[in-house]
Amino acid sequence: MAVYTEVSDEELAEFISPYNVGELLSYKGIAEGVENSNFLVHTTGGNFILTLYEKRVNRDDLPFFLNLMQHLSQKGLNCPTPLDRGNGEMLGELAGRPAAMVTFLEGMWVRRPRIEHCAELGRGMAEMHVAGSDFDMVRPNALSVDGWQPLLDATRDRAHEVMAGLAEELTLELDDLTAKWPANLPTGVIHADLFPDNVFFLGQKLSGLIDFYFACTDAFAYDVAICLNAWCFEPDGAFNVTKARAMLDGYRRIRPFTSAEFDCLPLLCRGAALRFLLTRLYDWLSVPEGALVVPKDPMEYLRKLRFHRDVTSAETYGLDL
Amino acid sequence: MAVYTEVSDEELAEFISPYNVGELLSYKGIAEGVENSNFLVHTTGGNFILTLYEKRVNRDDLPFFLNLMQHLSQKGLNCPTPLDRGNGEMLGELAGRPAAMVTFLEGMWVRRPRIEHCAELGRGMAEMHVAGSDFDMVRPNALSVDGWQPLLDATRDRAHEVMAGLAEELTLELDDLTAKWPANLPTGVIHADLFPDNVFFLGQKLSGLIDFYFACTDAFAYDVAICLNAWCFEPDGAFNVTKARAMLDGYRRIRPFTSAEFDCLPLLCRGAALRFLLTRLYDWLSVPEGALVVPKDPMEYLRKLRFHRDVTSAETYGLDL
Repeated sequence: MAVYTEVSDEELAEFISPYNVGELLSYKGIAEGVENSNFLVHTTGGNFILTLYEKRVNRDDLPFFLNLMQHLSQKGLNCPTPLDRGNGEMLGELAGRPAAMVTFLEGMWVRRPRIEHCAELGRGMAEMHVAGSDFDMVRPNALSVDGWQPLLDATRDRAHEVMAGLAEELTLELDDLTAKWPANLPTGVIHADLFPDNVFFLGQKLSGLIDFYFACTDAFAYDVAICLNAWCFEPDGAFNVTKARAMLDGYRRIRPFTSAEFDCLPLLCRGAALRFLLTRLYDWLSVPEGALVVPKDPMEYLRKLRFHRDVTSAETYGLDL
Repeated sequence: MAVYTEVSDEELAEFISPYNVGELLSYKGIAEGVENSNFLVHTTGGNFILTLYEKRVNRDDLPFFLNLMQHLSQKGLNCPTPLDRGNGEMLGELAGRPAAMVTFLEGMWVRRPRIEHCAELGRGMAEMHVAGSDFDMVRPNALSVDGWQPLLDATRDRAHEVMAGLAEELTLELDDLTAKWPANLPTGVIHADLFPDNVFFLGQKLSGLIDFYFACTDAFAYDVAICLNAWCFEPDGAFNVTKARAMLDGYRRIRPFTSAEFDCLPLLCRGAALRFLLTRLYDWLSVPEGALVVPKDPMEYLRKLRFHRDVTSAETYGLDL
């Protein structure tokens, strides 16, 4: 749950005046997004989400994120569309922070995804990859293989507090992944954080993707690997091959895999597991005692990492070439 | 900011099905209310607020609060109206907690109230007192003079951490207030927590009162005293007699004061200051180190208490008989 920047009624009324959204009727801070402060704003023109970018988001990256959402919307993808402040700019400043207003998306995220949700996710992710293929801005993935070493260095001395031998296991893993990480897979804009809370549904139909603040330029199949980890394991840790097959089939109907993507999938899944393991470990060790925010369990991702280490072919994920 | 109970999409869809509000379209946890978890729920039937009552609220009090809101709405007051679950009941259960849906009120609370807001508040509070005069349920005020002794007892040993001599000063104050506390003032339903964040405005017009979860049966003038403290002091601690006069004049146009209320006002203001001082002191000493919630400063209310101790007549508040 986010810590909110306080926004006064007077500041907000002034901030929204350049937008073509009518009069301010109400606004509420909402418990969505961990990195930023978000408000649901109601005006005579409709519902909008106002985001204040807090310090964990690099200000220089904001044009990439906002232009990407605008580009994807124009291509017909359901995602938040940033509003123009009347001067061609999508970014303003509010309460001392960069801020943007985006359209409100109906829908809810699914706490317990079923097979049909996984199929929809696969389709929606592939549509995003295709819609972004002619987006002309580039943002390297700061949390890909080059970014993992600093995270491991920052957590190495205290990793044993979570599990004895954890630092040693992760060091071996990272060395192996660094040596084998593929360089020439089909690349484009990926979401890089398509966890269930960023995918909205109305009934069993995907109604939109949100939270593009980890989006970057990277291998499409790495986005798929992140989703295999986030959507296709059961709460007890078991891999659900039926969900994986549904997701991958949904994806391939829109964008087929190359044979290189097929071959690399187990390795990419290991990498994607290590990436979330490391950031969760970092957060776990950083949260002060007594804090009200419960960090996510890094060990969930160690179990996923170990699962993928035993996978010899993408066929294990229900995929057939 | 509240800590939220997690509510799943499936649980919520099931919970709202008995209401006549159509299909669920979205819901967001909102940062409103310290005692309960609140969600803004959007359905094909409109916007609603869903409240889950957390353990600080006594379940036995809920019928009083919900029936009161229903009564006040029926009298034409703008306040959240609890929805019927189709069986005549306003209270249901969700995620293991008592839960209710109420209508959504447009408007925003004013961070820096001006004179015209104080005048509107006075009018709105008096209208609430009048509208509640034929409400037939009774709830004693647990945070009136009899409730202060246990709070002082619970904080006495550590009050010096906030200010040297604080426990001694509060003991003298409480003894004096207990001896002099008036028993026969005009009584009825009071809100008892009409701070600016519970009063919504659209422009300079009051659009509604919210959060009736401290409402109780007590002296009307005690509600007025709470508001004098909450609305008529400037951030630098100075009492603003112009705001007080505007608020009291707004109130008296709807419901005139008796001479007993006039005479007791300085004493009631001292009591109201002590009440918020004690609960803030309790919260201040209870919050764990490193917690993300910053408790409200109890000393603000010590300064207000001392101000009222020097007041000899309600004329100081801009009131003339």
